[in-house]
Amino acid sequence: MRKTLRELAQYLEGELVGDESVEIGGLAPIREACEGEITFLDNEKYYPDLARTGASAAIVGRTTEIPPGKSGIRVEAPYYAWARLMEVWFPPEPRRRIGISERSWIGQDVAFGRDVNVWPGASIGDRARIGDRCDIHPGVVIGPDCRIGADSVLYPNVVIYRGCELGERVILHAGVVIGADGFGYILHDGIHVKVPQVGNVVIEDDVEIGANTTVDRAMIGSTRIGRGTKIDNLVMVAHNCQVGQACIIISQAGLSGSTRLGNYVTLAGQVGVVGHLSIGDGAKVGAQSGVTKDVPAGEVVLGSPAIEIHESKRSLVLLKYLPEMRERVLELEERIKALEARLGGSGG
Amino acid sequence: MRKTLRELAQYLEGELVGDESVEIGGLAPIREACEGEITFLDNEKYYPDLARTGASAAIVGRTTEIPPGKSGIRVEAPYYAWARLMEVWFPPEPRRRIGISERSWIGQDVAFGRDVNVWPGASIGDRARIGDRCDIHPGVVIGPDCRIGADSVLYPNVVIYRGCELGERVILHAGVVIGADGFGYILHDGIHVKVPQVGNVVIEDDVEIGANTTVDRAMIGSTRIGRGTKIDNLVMVAHNCQVGQACIIISQAGLSGSTRLGNYVTLAGQVGVVGHLSIGDGAKVGAQSGVTKDVPAGEVVLGSPAIEIHESKRSLVLLKYLPEMRERVLELEERIKALEARLGGSGG
Amino acid sequence: MRKTLRELAQYLEGELVGDESVEIGGLAPIREACEGEITFLDNEKYYPDLARTGASAAIVGRTTEIPPGKSGIRVEAPYYAWARLMEVWFPPEPRRRIGISERSWIGQDVAFGRDVNVWPGASIGDRARIGDRCDIHPGVVIGPDCRIGADSVLYPNVVIYRGCELGERVILHAGVVIGADGFGYILHDGIHVKVPQVGNVVIEDDVEIGANTTVDRAMIGSTRIGRGTKIDNLVMVAHNCQVGQACIIISQAGLSGSTRLGNYVTLAGQVGVVGHLSIGDGAKVGAQSGVTKDVPAGEVVLGSPAIEIHESKRSLVLLKYLPEMRERVLELEERIKALEARLGGSGG
Repeated sequence: MRKTLRELAQYLEGELVGDESVEIGGLAPIREACEGEITFLDNEKYYPDLARTGASAAIVGRTTEIPPGKSGIRVEAPYYAWARLMEVWFPPEPRRRIGISERSWIGQDVAFGRDVNVWPGASIGDRARIGDRCDIHPGVVIGPDCRIGADSVLYPNVVIYRGCELGERVILHAGVVIGADGFGYILHDGIHVKVPQVGNVVIEDDVEIGANTTVDRAMIGSTRIGRGTKIDNLVMVAHNCQVGQACIIISQAGLSGSTRLGNYVTLAGQVGVVGHLSIGDGAKVGAQSGVTKDVPAGEVVLGSPAIEIHESKRSLVLLKYLPEMRERVLELEERIKALEARLGGSGG
Repeated sequence: MRKTLRELAQYLEGELVGDESVEIGGLAPIREACEGEITFLDNEKYYPDLARTGASAAIVGRTTEIPPGKSGIRVEAPYYAWARLMEVWFPPEPRRRIGISERSWIGQDVAFGRDVNVWPGASIGDRARIGDRCDIHPGVVIGPDCRIGADSVLYPNVVIYRGCELGERVILHAGVVIGADGFGYILHDGIHVKVPQVGNVVIEDDVEIGANTTVDRAMIGSTRIGRGTKIDNLVMVAHNCQVGQACIIISQAGLSGSTRLGNYVTLAGQVGVVGHLSIGDGAKVGAQSGVTKDVPAGEVVLGSPAIEIHESKRSLVLLKYLPEMRERVLELEERIKALEARLGGSGG
Repeated sequence: MRKTLRELAQYLEGELVGDESVEIGGLAPIREACEGEITFLDNEKYYPDLARTGASAAIVGRTTEIPPGKSGIRVEAPYYAWARLMEVWFPPEPRRRIGISERSWIGQDVAFGRDVNVWPGASIGDRARIGDRCDIHPGVVIGPDCRIGADSVLYPNVVIYRGCELGERVILHAGVVIGADGFGYILHDGIHVKVPQVGNVVIEDDVEIGANTTVDRAMIGSTRIGRGTKIDNLVMVAHNCQVGQACIIISQAGLSGSTRLGNYVTLAGQVGVVGHLSIGDGAKVGAQSGVTKDVPAGEVVLGSPAIEIHESKRSLVLLKYLPEMRERVLELEERIKALEARLGGSGG
């Protein structure tokens, strides 16, 4: 497919800069783009890449200067505009309809909606209810009494333990495990006695969860992932966590038991959160942080233990000056010794 | 099911406080409990929740004050008592017996004990031995020459490589991988040459391992997980590790090769341990710590690198005072300069 | 099998020390070895183990002193020599040939090379091309349009999403997920809108990837793992990362999106790397480090945030002296106060 820059600017309702007749045949990231391709610049941090890019044109912000000789389209939200172009160039393939494979295993009293696909090698337990147009890929195992909302996609080898519930348009990537037993034991007479984990997991509409992430079932009640929350790969959500709506949880983060996240919380990669804490709406936790106490709504924290980010960065800067500070202290000691010597003996 | 508080107190052999005739119809965590439910308080840190809970009654410690207007049961170990009530309200379902599914794949010379369940889509390699009453769920793959002890449960999509051994009553949650090759290479002529990993993994009785955790096979000999040890989700145990009995290893912790844990060791979440170290009996490692040297028995360590916990906490407190300390040093410098000026020139 | 030490020394072209007639019947790590076994010492840090080992002989470096009463073989590279002996004692089993199981599921127009094994319960999507002598284990799911090079091994329950490419002699351990959607969303009108992830993953020849590791597909273009790179278990490689050749990435490390690693880069366990960074050839990142800016070729960094290792270690040492430093500052303050008092009032 080829489009002129003018056509693209019209489609995006953006401001055209430079040569409107440039023909665009493809999309590429700013560092890899070649002639005939369009790219985008969303973060001004990478502005130097804009001059160097091989792309014929770039989608940029309303106030971004386009380097001489380049063409571009100015829009309010460059990344969002880019995503819209992605959908033009790469329209989603029509959903394949294979029906319920005879080589899947279906338990008793399973209720299927319309146009469900169940691939060979998938297993669905007794009394499960699978909504319209769900895709159940090979190797998926859905336990008895689960409910899966319409238009959900379970990629290969996802496992959902008994009695868990998924909303509509939920996407679970390969290897996700929903509803394994929470990690609960009591040390009694020298033995770790297992505490029954009789709750479940509830995943609301429009949640997407990355490959090999695990969300444990509640000891009692439900572990809950709120509507529109997106979770990356290899994340751990422990039993009885309550994750709010539209949160972003990046790879390898871990939530201990009974932690509560408000709405629009962001946890960066490899963050750990101690159990029974609350992280307020809109709070952000920096990468590798260890959260050991409640975080108020809107606060940004960093470090292990995590503290308010400016305080944390100030400490980090000072850490760098530690060697210098130590030398200064030693030098002061010498100078005081000299002063004391000059003033003589046991004065005071 | 409904029980009076008197009946429950008798069952738990606890001391009844308040109204013995209260009818209890369910169990719930302290923050979610409603009227007619019983809850528990194990950690005095959450004592304020006890006054606020909607529960009609609470199981508490021997010396815990029950707030006015509430009823409760005082016991030695509230969490343990709670777990016993859980078993009353939620008795384990009778084990389903499905036998060896014709839609599983069974190799040659596999030996099954009595009442084994092998679900559709499971694979068992040649010469494997599966003990009495094991549950082998869909998608489980057991390699040749493995031995699985009686009453073990392998949840969906667990993989056990050739020649590994599990004891009795072992529980492996979905996606666990036992016995993949250890990570061993030698850089030779610019190439990472693979070192053969010919050992196995031995998992002793009563071990439970969480979803998507991996335990690698030994280069030679065995990687071993001791009796009664409990491992959470997404943990990594590298080749040739020797984990003792009744250890607790929390989510996303990682053990490098040949590490030795004594008995009753606790590793909190996201801990990392360098290879070839020993962590003594009963030692505890705080969350996100990085252990870089041996930890003596009974010691509690924290931080990256991990040091004795009080020392670590002292450093953390001091870190907070770094800005202040820096200002003090700068101020001292000024005051010394002033003193030096008053004492004049190149004295001494 | 039994060999004399003389035979082994000849095979390894090493220098024999001690009794050449000692009969060796097995191999074992230095701490577990018994009489009649040979062990090795590669890292002088563990030299004390050499005197204590029960082994009858040891492979050591050219200049290593063999303790009195022990025999040994001196070679240039002890670990490599050991690996060669491993292959003598444990020759790889001849590859089993089972062909394409009728109990696997094969899509349309799949092209198989010679002697491919596809085990029961594996699924291969339409138009996939599987090279000669590949082993596709049970529960593996290969999406449509994938290409797998010759002699590759996909252990049980590996998942490869559509359109990904593997080179020759690639080994993917159980539970690896290749090509799941990258984690890309744009917050638009309060909703995290998914950015299409239309790229793929390219894994070059001789790559080995550990259990339950995930490598996400590119938003556009390819996420790439270079030839000869070895990745451990539970690692996360995000979309559009470019990992060079012969890198070593240890367990639970995580790379954010669009990160570039040169060749021969080492990332130790639990390292995190921020997105869009470059780590130069031969650079090394210490365990649990958080890399927040580019790392030049050859540099060794440590810490979170990661800095040059000597600087980092110096800071760590100073951290230990913080309590002392604080006391010194307080003491200096006292001494200055005393000096000021002696010099009297508002002098200067």
